[in-house]
Amino acid sequence: MTNLSDAVASVAVVGATGYAGGELAAILSRHPHANLAAVFSGAKSGTTPFRSLHPSLSRATGPDAVPFDLDLLLAAKPDVVFLATPNEIAAEVVPQLLDRGVRVIDLSGAFRLRESASYPTWYGFEHPRAELLREAVYGLTEFCNGELTTARLVANPGCYPTSVLLAVRPLAALIDRDQPLICDSMSGISGAGKKSELAYSFAEVFGNFKAYGVAGHRHEPEIRQGLKLGDRATLIFVPHLLPTVRGILSTIHVAFTEPLTAEHVLALYTKAYAASHLVTVLPHGQLPELKDVVNTPRAEIGFQLLQGGKRAVLVSVIDNLLKGAASQAVQNFNRMFGYPDTEGLS
Amino acid sequence: MTNLSDAVASVAVVGATGYAGGELAAILSRHPHANLAAVFSGAKSGTTPFRSLHPSLSRATGPDAVPFDLDLLLAAKPDVVFLATPNEIAAEVVPQLLDRGVRVIDLSGAFRLRESASYPTWYGFEHPRAELLREAVYGLTEFCNGELTTARLVANPGCYPTSVLLAVRPLAALIDRDQPLICDSMSGISGAGKKSELAYSFAEVFGNFKAYGVAGHRHEPEIRQGLKLGDRATLIFVPHLLPTVRGILSTIHVAFTEPLTAEHVLALYTKAYAASHLVTVLPHGQLPELKDVVNTPRAEIGFQLLQGGKRAVLVSVIDNLLKGAASQAVQNFNRMFGYPDTEGLS
Amino acid sequence: MTNLSDAVASVAVVGATGYAGGELAAILSRHPHANLAAVFSGAKSGTTPFRSLHPSLSRATGPDAVPFDLDLLLAAKPDVVFLATPNEIAAEVVPQLLDRGVRVIDLSGAFRLRESASYPTWYGFEHPRAELLREAVYGLTEFCNGELTTARLVANPGCYPTSVLLAVRPLAALIDRDQPLICDSMSGISGAGKKSELAYSFAEVFGNFKAYGVAGHRHEPEIRQGLKLGDRATLIFVPHLLPTVRGILSTIHVAFTEPLTAEHVLALYTKAYAASHLVTVLPHGQLPELKDVVNTPRAEIGFQLLQGGKRAVLVSVIDNLLKGAASQAVQNFNRMFGYPDTEGLS
Amino acid sequence: MTNLSDAVASVAVVGATGYAGGELAAILSRHPHANLAAVFSGAKSGTTPFRSLHPSLSRATGPDAVPFDLDLLLAAKPDVVFLATPNEIAAEVVPQLLDRGVRVIDLSGAFRLRESASYPTWYGFEHPRAELLREAVYGLTEFCNGELTTARLVANPGCYPTSVLLAVRPLAALIDRDQPLICDSMSGISGAGKKSELAYSFAEVFGNFKAYGVAGHRHEPEIRQGLKLGDRATLIFVPHLLPTVRGILSTIHVAFTEPLTAEHVLALYTKAYAASHLVTVLPHGQLPELKDVVNTPRAEIGFQLLQGGKRAVLVSVIDNLLKGAASQAVQNFNRMFGYPDTEGLS
Repeated sequence: MTNLSDAVASVAVVGATGYAGGELAAILSRHPHANLAAVFSGAKSGTTPFRSLHPSLSRATGPDAVPFDLDLLLAAKPDVVFLATPNEIAAEVVPQLLDRGVRVIDLSGAFRLRESASYPTWYGFEHPRAELLREAVYGLTEFCNGELTTARLVANPGCYPTSVLLAVRPLAALIDRDQPLICDSMSGISGAGKKSELAYSFAEVFGNFKAYGVAGHRHEPEIRQGLKLGDRATLIFVPHLLPTVRGILSTIHVAFTEPLTAEHVLALYTKAYAASHLVTVLPHGQLPELKDVVNTPRAEIGFQLLQGGKRAVLVSVIDNLLKGAASQAVQNFNRMFGYPDTEGLS
Repeated sequence: MTNLSDAVASVAVVGATGYAGGELAAILSRHPHANLAAVFSGAKSGTTPFRSLHPSLSRATGPDAVPFDLDLLLAAKPDVVFLATPNEIAAEVVPQLLDRGVRVIDLSGAFRLRESASYPTWYGFEHPRAELLREAVYGLTEFCNGELTTARLVANPGCYPTSVLLAVRPLAALIDRDQPLICDSMSGISGAGKKSELAYSFAEVFGNFKAYGVAGHRHEPEIRQGLKLGDRATLIFVPHLLPTVRGILSTIHVAFTEPLTAEHVLALYTKAYAASHLVTVLPHGQLPELKDVVNTPRAEIGFQLLQGGKRAVLVSVIDNLLKGAASQAVQNFNRMFGYPDTEGLS
Repeated sequence: MTNLSDAVASVAVVGATGYAGGELAAILSRHPHANLAAVFSGAKSGTTPFRSLHPSLSRATGPDAVPFDLDLLLAAKPDVVFLATPNEIAAEVVPQLLDRGVRVIDLSGAFRLRESASYPTWYGFEHPRAELLREAVYGLTEFCNGELTTARLVANPGCYPTSVLLAVRPLAALIDRDQPLICDSMSGISGAGKKSELAYSFAEVFGNFKAYGVAGHRHEPEIRQGLKLGDRATLIFVPHLLPTVRGILSTIHVAFTEPLTAEHVLALYTKAYAASHLVTVLPHGQLPELKDVVNTPRAEIGFQLLQGGKRAVLVSVIDNLLKGAASQAVQNFNRMFGYPDTEGLS
Repeated sequence: MTNLSDAVASVAVVGATGYAGGELAAILSRHPHANLAAVFSGAKSGTTPFRSLHPSLSRATGPDAVPFDLDLLLAAKPDVVFLATPNEIAAEVVPQLLDRGVRVIDLSGAFRLRESASYPTWYGFEHPRAELLREAVYGLTEFCNGELTTARLVANPGCYPTSVLLAVRPLAALIDRDQPLICDSMSGISGAGKKSELAYSFAEVFGNFKAYGVAGHRHEPEIRQGLKLGDRATLIFVPHLLPTVRGILSTIHVAFTEPLTAEHVLALYTKAYAASHLVTVLPHGQLPELKDVVNTPRAEIGFQLLQGGKRAVLVSVIDNLLKGAASQAVQNFNRMFGYPDTEGLS
């Protein structure tokens, strides 16, 4: 069906018992050019059967997830390791892997910000390896060029930043940075990870809705960096928790430096995404819905011009666990090895 | 328990088979100073038993809902009629009632906008009685003074405007009208009324979320009027549909003409709501959740100052069918007759 | 409005930070014949503000919930204490209260079973006061006669048993005990209490549904006892967890000793519930829905005869936190003091 | 990757704008041995873009769905037509296709029952072609042997019957037919199809749960036939509507002619499903959950013996739109052409 090489990379997943890690295990186990050689859980002890990592794996065979152990991981001789772990663990493990010549796609935030000074503020720890922050490729796939081919370390974008940047980046040159950029983002609850806390219990979340993190969420500096906003421009990012499991919808308010037409905006988006099979831009005035992308690796973007084109409302939707995490990581893996973005994701 | 007069007003509800009308019927049937004399459905024929109007009425007795008939309504000799009907019907019925000396609390939008010229644009019909638009009291109860006591016609505010105005009005004098006022509002699906359309079916809405009406929603001119924004100021209002039944949360972005302290903002809110038992303002940085107000007649408001107090994010929550419709109508009824706002609403 | 005495009983709630306890606090704070003198949390330390116990209390004043302390409780001089605690705590506290002359309505299972031998098997502890098991009045209110008036200790029924017994008890004399009585009961997730466990998290429960406890649930001996099934009759009780918060629906399969007509069945139900304002029996073939009773203190029962009246399917619905816990406890309180069942519950 | 022939069958879907039809279109468009040649909607006019038939098709290309037209269908020269239409339409169209040499997999109920006399009673129409009822192969795939290879007409099982028969058929020889077989089945709301009715609106279904069809559902004779129960045995089937979109869980109560051990039951299930990759039987006492199979083509079955093995509770779960409709249809297609059951379904 394809004339791609039949080469297969050996891969491992660390953190496969989380929601994003489970999606990764499921995708990689079916990827025609990946061999899932080892899988590690987030637990301190015990084994999680491979088939329990994701509903679609129920009858599949593959390596059971065991507590993370660097020697075990290295023994599997992976070409690439996907990390879906807490930030602090990734900050510690990534250098160990790179030092041993293993490439890493890190789904945590440990290598997303360029400035090590940002880590104590936003992540609560001193970053151990500042030079790797400069080396890491920020893997917002559609905006990467050749750099992924040779990347040793890919910092896979956060879910909220992915949803915001996909909508704003193509228009960034025309956005008026003297006016605030306002992002109200709403995420399904799986974005918080597997939570054994009352606040995330069904009885508390059902029928509820709330904003949180308004005074500062760690995805805010990531969005700011992704848009090269600098220190002066105002970015207001308000995350909200939807009473559903999957998906992020971001409603974004921007002002332009000059009035734009719908044709102009569409041309900018087309330029950015014409080659992409995973980002769809809708006609002017048509807005995407969460269900259009949930359980898919795709993003959809809609826009509505206001005030004669001086301002716009942008709306973007993704599945937070896929385009916002696992499937974007696999897009990055595909780029590393020269496969189409959609390989293993159809 | 009270030293209020034992006087009882005769009341009627038109449109009691809708969600807001059913809430009204339930509240009024238990109100110590109301006698529910007649109830009309939104149907063209057939009778709806009183106990079917609201789950809490299952064993209650009261007038069955029959198709609207002016003579039948007048025969019940109501002191006040609550209209929870489509806009066009209210526009036609209200003058007939006023002409016969019956006071009206209209939950539709037919008398909310001052300017008759707004009706063709936003409501799709020529307004039949422009002079009544000027007479109607806009019943955002906490901002009414004595005018409700003698009002013949109360235009009960829309659900979205109620949620936005309660948060913004107390700060209005200090808001910078040269910067856009941005409101992202998310409503439970009962806000759309009882809908027999595929787009509102459970299978389509479950797990979904979307923005709609971004190019112009009829609640936008109502918010603009309620804030006296004039023509020049920019208001951006984006309504969204939450996958839940009840509640509205509005996330509102404002800029101030001068930097404010949290104490200053709280003082303004306290001035507005100190006397109210139905609006709660939270301490700086604490944001309300939908579940705090669902099934209650209350509103809650939270705020977070940004940029040294030059900007703020305001978050307000209400139950769209209660404070956004039925219970606010009963607050207005209470004011008409001199009872406390909370009478019949505890 | 009533000619009842204005007497007010002093009451206390222990376990008010749970879901059922919060409902109790809300109801009792509004009850015209109760004075809520003290409220205790399920926590070991810290204070929970009264207004946080239930959404409807947000602006209410009342005693804050503090960790349980017997001396503090006695200092409040309660006439009646409502216990909504774990079973083991109730087993220990109830005797202490009775010994000091305080009446108790216990919402736990600690005094529901007559036989102390059942406790190690079903509840995992030796019962400390077997003689109180014989004294306790099983408070399925509609089936109590005068005994509640003088009861020192009321064992408030479990939620599942309430839903099953209300449907089956009126027909019990005609049920064929040689054929299995089969109850498939489905409960909203609040029935499990406030849970900080992954299995009860929103992400795990949303869109899910399962049976559990099929090999034996502690509500099974309670149903068996409530129907006087003895050892020989077969009872099969399968509880299921619904992806919603409130409500229990039980689908019950019974065989009769002789064929019954719909009129006969209705007559039996009417005999049982004619005097009740809180139990509604629907016409033959009409089945109740969960939403008809959620957030109400009522039960609804429907039935469908099969095989010429030799068998029937019974369907009953209640709100598990109200008729299945808090409002039934208040019915029992009302009976203790001679008020109508519905007092404080409208 | 396989040594199967590269042969590709030309297929068409009628009724692709329904939920099951959309799943079919999505699966067949990705099936390595199917070429989706034509797609027909359930509408009388207008065209539905291919990418709108299912979320996963958003960027896919394929034939747009147009109103059904026999000539258009035949012009596409399909080898097999999948019908996901109302029963009456299938009853009329199937003979026309067979007469022209086109094989049919019918997802409706029009050819499921052997006896034409059952159609007026259960389906409300006289069956036009009784002889085809005897020819049709009832496509409960795991219980078909060679007959699918040559079948002209496959009657794809109903969703509820699939869930019940998979659990009961392997044990059928040991079930005591003198005792009632009781099935309480709960289905997600997509089982009702795309509905523009108030009763299926989000606002009415959210938080609700109900039994329906207790006096007789057309899936009851299909279950009875599938178990060869005859006229004498008692089958009680009560369908319920879950407040979720996808999945059926059936809780089934059976009595055996002799006491069985867990090993015996497991041996019977193993005999039935050892060769199947799509039916999983869990160890004794472990029960499946809906989420284990939603969005998969698999079934899971659990069981709990009671009364020393004289009775059992069986619990089975499927995705009603997949194993209960579309994916089972594709299993049958695979059998027709000699492919493994899982072809195109992984």
